[in-house]
Amino acid sequence: MRDHVRPLPSYLVSRFHGWQATTYTENKGWYRRLADEGQRPRAMIIACCDSRVHVSSIFGADSGEFFSHRNIANLVPPYTPDGDHHGTSAAVEYAVTSLKVAHLIVLGHSQCGGVHGCHEMCTGHAPELEEKTSFVGTWLDLLRPAYEAVKDLPEDKQIEALEKQGVVTSLANLMTFPFVKDAIEAGTMTLHGLWHDIGAGSLEQFNPATGAFEVV
Amino acid sequence: MRDHVRPLPSYLVSRFHGWQATTYTENKGWYRRLADEGQRPRAMIIACCDSRVHVSSIFGADSGEFFSHRNIANLVPPYTPDGDHHGTSAAVEYAVTSLKVAHLIVLGHSQCGGVHGCHEMCTGHAPELEEKTSFVGTWLDLLRPAYEAVKDLPEDKQIEALEKQGVVTSLANLMTFPFVKDAIEAGTMTLHGLWHDIGAGSLEQFNPATGAFEVV
Amino acid sequence: MRDHVRPLPSYLVSRFHGWQATTYTENKGWYRRLADEGQRPRAMIIACCDSRVHVSSIFGADSGEFFSHRNIANLVPPYTPDGDHHGTSAAVEYAVTSLKVAHLIVLGHSQCGGVHGCHEMCTGHAPELEEKTSFVGTWLDLLRPAYEAVKDLPEDKQIEALEKQGVVTSLANLMTFPFVKDAIEAGTMTLHGLWHDIGAGSLEQFNPATGAFEVV
Amino acid sequence: MRDHVRPLPSYLVSRFHGWQATTYTENKGWYRRLADEGQRPRAMIIACCDSRVHVSSIFGADSGEFFSHRNIANLVPPYTPDGDHHGTSAAVEYAVTSLKVAHLIVLGHSQCGGVHGCHEMCTGHAPELEEKTSFVGTWLDLLRPAYEAVKDLPEDKQIEALEKQGVVTSLANLMTFPFVKDAIEAGTMTLHGLWHDIGAGSLEQFNPATGAFEVV
Repeated sequence: MRDHVRPLPSYLVSRFHGWQATTYTENKGWYRRLADEGQRPRAMIIACCDSRVHVSSIFGADSGEFFSHRNIANLVPPYTPDGDHHGTSAAVEYAVTSLKVAHLIVLGHSQCGGVHGCHEMCTGHAPELEEKTSFVGTWLDLLRPAYEAVKDLPEDKQIEALEKQGVVTSLANLMTFPFVKDAIEAGTMTLHGLWHDIGAGSLEQFNPATGAFEVV
Repeated sequence: MRDHVRPLPSYLVSRFHGWQATTYTENKGWYRRLADEGQRPRAMIIACCDSRVHVSSIFGADSGEFFSHRNIANLVPPYTPDGDHHGTSAAVEYAVTSLKVAHLIVLGHSQCGGVHGCHEMCTGHAPELEEKTSFVGTWLDLLRPAYEAVKDLPEDKQIEALEKQGVVTSLANLMTFPFVKDAIEAGTMTLHGLWHDIGAGSLEQFNPATGAFEVV
Repeated sequence: MRDHVRPLPSYLVSRFHGWQATTYTENKGWYRRLADEGQRPRAMIIACCDSRVHVSSIFGADSGEFFSHRNIANLVPPYTPDGDHHGTSAAVEYAVTSLKVAHLIVLGHSQCGGVHGCHEMCTGHAPELEEKTSFVGTWLDLLRPAYEAVKDLPEDKQIEALEKQGVVTSLANLMTFPFVKDAIEAGTMTLHGLWHDIGAGSLEQFNPATGAFEVV
Repeated sequence: MRDHVRPLPSYLVSRFHGWQATTYTENKGWYRRLADEGQRPRAMIIACCDSRVHVSSIFGADSGEFFSHRNIANLVPPYTPDGDHHGTSAAVEYAVTSLKVAHLIVLGHSQCGGVHGCHEMCTGHAPELEEKTSFVGTWLDLLRPAYEAVKDLPEDKQIEALEKQGVVTSLANLMTFPFVKDAIEAGTMTLHGLWHDIGAGSLEQFNPATGAFEVV
């Protein structure tokens, strides 16, 4: 450990000090209340780790607004209470049962490297991801069922369709969690499925009535 | 599904349209390049889902800078290539082997609900978290080993100490991943351990030489 | 040559070794990637050579962020493809057509010696700069047209006004380059005009709607 | 103009405000003196525009230390007092005759896109740069004479050799300026030739006695 952990790069130190002297100073009262009274986020967002998905920016959100879980390809596994470590399921459980968020949002995006990797696996082009030791490949197995819904599309439409179908699959998996179902049926929480086009700067949402994504 | 998925709340629609008309418009060229050429983030940050941890804000980061994984209590499990779905390990693997990030940063924080829950478990006050069906409890088992290092401290110091010890444990677990170890030994990546005090607006970093966290 | 080129002064050697042992070591992975994969700067900044204009500092920028051209008085000449050596035009061409930067920023500043010299020329106080053999005077001829816009102001306002008018002139000249115009019209690049007050530590930006510089 | 010039991207605004509240505030007295009394830089540095050449960082330099001219490939043309606009010559003239810098430093670097382009021209692989309308190509003509010194080296050594030979050529061209020669002969200024390896983080300096670059 002694040899591996290093001081923070100085450009981040400078920027942090800048934040401390401006944003923090101007919002100190609120940040102290958030610390003292605990968070009370209105929504949970499940988004991709991708550096180009800037959730708080696109929704103008400040500290305290979104409980954010980010994993590769914004996937939610089905309900599997087997005693293993399930980071995503734990985050959903905490948001729904402890924080009682009012909205549970799954946010997919264009040019998703994870979705692309899954497509490669499903079309037989990524044997390295299919090895049992590949954490990425094993994780993306969660998205495989969604490939069924897109495999007959023209090839150049499949990736974007799979990005969107992944959101739909995650929404469906969320419904397998008893506490999610209960909150929805009690009318205390709503589900939302989004897809963000990074280059075009647009946002589409899943319309369950039509089964399509529509521009917001 | 038809009855469960709803349109995005209008306050988020409004804000998104505001972002689209301002930030997106002013940065369109850059966002398009990020879409066309792919991301090249300099660092991966592993942070908590907590809504009060505003990573991009405190580091003045814009789209494309940080690959962000967020889970409850910013935990990294030890290397366990057992073929199960490991969201955190998959994110680390992707960041290190595909994106080749230069810095891997674990960011803990004060008033962490997850760490508090683990402390409750360890002191016998949270039987509900110890049930096998609790995803939160099972996830927080990953933090249990860190409790050993703090259990003899005065009680009112234990929570903060456990938040920090959680970061140290995650750093140690990261070193059990062969690809993390390889990147560090090759000199292409560095590890960093941080703890952010939400109310005080301060930042501390782990100094492996002293074993303590020091103000940045 | 043998007698003219000397070893680097030791104070710079010491500082370089300090940088190498700290900043370089902490960021080695990133610097190697920048070397191996090439730069991908988000913005080009055209600033003055003046030692008091510390571009990377005021914008918290690290290696790889800004493509920087610096000349006396941050001037851009009009488009003149006459086969002569045009260092500024070459830098702009490279940034726009090869690097495809998303932002092109002209940064003027207070107490600019070059702008002061041009003002002296325009008011007949600097015959030595008007000699054909003066590189400084000939270079500052590029700023002369801007004097028209400030010559009727009270004398003590003229210098600062000329510094700002120089930025506006450079922005207008940039628009005479076909590749700049194309990138702007394609929506892949934006222009920005700034003026930095060195003593006050403030920054103003040109608002084309009002024709004035406004505090950022 | 109205439609082309835009507000500064908000990530730069935030960072600037951070700088203002920290670095500026802490150094206000010095910055005000620099504004009131004028700059007095010890050295002029002629470096490349490349975003990876972070001059102030590698030399630990703060505001007021270096008069910086940056152009593509850090080139200095020979003395040509023909009444045309010569940005580089103007910057050198101002530094030497007005600011009376004590050191004049030419800093080359590895992976230089400009030098690479010149090598492509010299080996007949870049007809587009040889067109009279290419500002980059015309600018790089200044480096062509240096190709003679490297063309018989093994091909994989030529680029780095040309980067270094470019520095030597610029140093020789500097000596053709009467005011440079005068200052050197009067013993009030020294010349220095450097080459920085971006990936390795090393620095070499030209030793005129051996004609080679040696590690600093």
